[in-house]
Amino acid sequence: MEFQDYIPIWEKLTPPQRQRLKDGAARRTVQKGTVLHSGNADCTGLFLIQQGRLRAYTLSEEGREITLYRLFDRDICLFSASCIMRSIQFDVMIQAETDTQLWIIPSGLYKDLMEESALAANFVNEIMASRFSEVMWLMEQIMWKSFDKRLAKFLLEESALEGSATLKLTHETAANHLGTAREVVTRMLRYFKSEGMVRLTRGTIELTDTEKLEALLEA
Amino acid sequence: MEFQDYIPIWEKLTPPQRQRLKDGAARRTVQKGTVLHSGNADCTGLFLIQQGRLRAYTLSEEGREITLYRLFDRDICLFSASCIMRSIQFDVMIQAETDTQLWIIPSGLYKDLMEESALAANFVNEIMASRFSEVMWLMEQIMWKSFDKRLAKFLLEESALEGSATLKLTHETAANHLGTAREVVTRMLRYFKSEGMVRLTRGTIELTDTEKLEALLEA
Repeated sequence: MEFQDYIPIWEKLTPPQRQRLKDGAARRTVQKGTVLHSGNADCTGLFLIQQGRLRAYTLSEEGREITLYRLFDRDICLFSASCIMRSIQFDVMIQAETDTQLWIIPSGLYKDLMEESALAANFVNEIMASRFSEVMWLMEQIMWKSFDKRLAKFLLEESALEGSATLKLTHETAANHLGTAREVVTRMLRYFKSEGMVRLTRGTIELTDTEKLEALLEA
Repeated sequence: MEFQDYIPIWEKLTPPQRQRLKDGAARRTVQKGTVLHSGNADCTGLFLIQQGRLRAYTLSEEGREITLYRLFDRDICLFSASCIMRSIQFDVMIQAETDTQLWIIPSGLYKDLMEESALAANFVNEIMASRFSEVMWLMEQIMWKSFDKRLAKFLLEESALEGSATLKLTHETAANHLGTAREVVTRMLRYFKSEGMVRLTRGTIELTDTEKLEALLEA
């Protein structure tokens, strides 16, 4: 698949717009763990993911993290170019969760395209609305779902993403994802273990009863 | 002030676009307490506030509320027209907090304008980004600030909005605003009282030491 196949509005852009995008986009390969963007001060550009997985998260003053959402193949990351929108007043960090191939579309090019094309501006609008929806969903999870459900959901999702029932995952990492303390995760995992839902070894969590974990989500 | 003075991009719109907006916008006066919009199914249109105050909030399945943000004179409410954006997948409720005069711009008119004008689409983009920023800020408050700070902040803001140190406010209402249980609010208010920061009577909360409340925010 070519660059243009990753841009849903490609066919509706003008030939000069297409040319500018093709010429301006830079292809990069980044290793797992690389922090690609850290907050508004960093005016990196749009990321268009060819293959891989990025994680968007925020960081508290004390260094605690919360994962906002993940980006997968064909997804576009807006917040790495948030510098062009003066109304975005929060800092998002972007990290590669797997080795990732992506294109970077420079912020200036993106800004010009938004200003001249209602189509491009509306496309970006829809992307922002869907990230907004993910964050709203997360906030509702935090506010209104009890923590056992949140942890069960997280483990099941990780297991689906990794394609394995055995997760290489520290309690600290799980706590960062869920915006809570390590102790809270450890306590809940011990409960899950006592219920036969997981097996715990140093540095791994094995899901031994996914049906029971899923049932927890319905409870 | 006229309708057009409330639309920052007015001068840059074409004469036919201006005419359609003028013809299409309906002026309404709503009473304090009126629920103007309840979720995505409700395709009400854009609200442009002439004078008054609206509150945007979400509702859990159990009926608990959390206030997302407030809208004041000259603000534009997008979520009351969220039906035109398929990527908005959460429900926002909008209620008048004071008697409010506003214009309603029908969703179809708004949609057409967004599609034909990059300027309008980018303007809406900035509005969405600023609401997104408010929600991110709120989430960070919830995740990372302790509840004493949140309650102190809420009381100080209410007092500034009402222009009075005496708030007519039940613990239940404060709890809804802060997405917590009444008991949590009551307990913290008793603590504030014991510290000499508030005086409590039935149905009112009087701020007796705003300096000390403000100091709490810095702690």
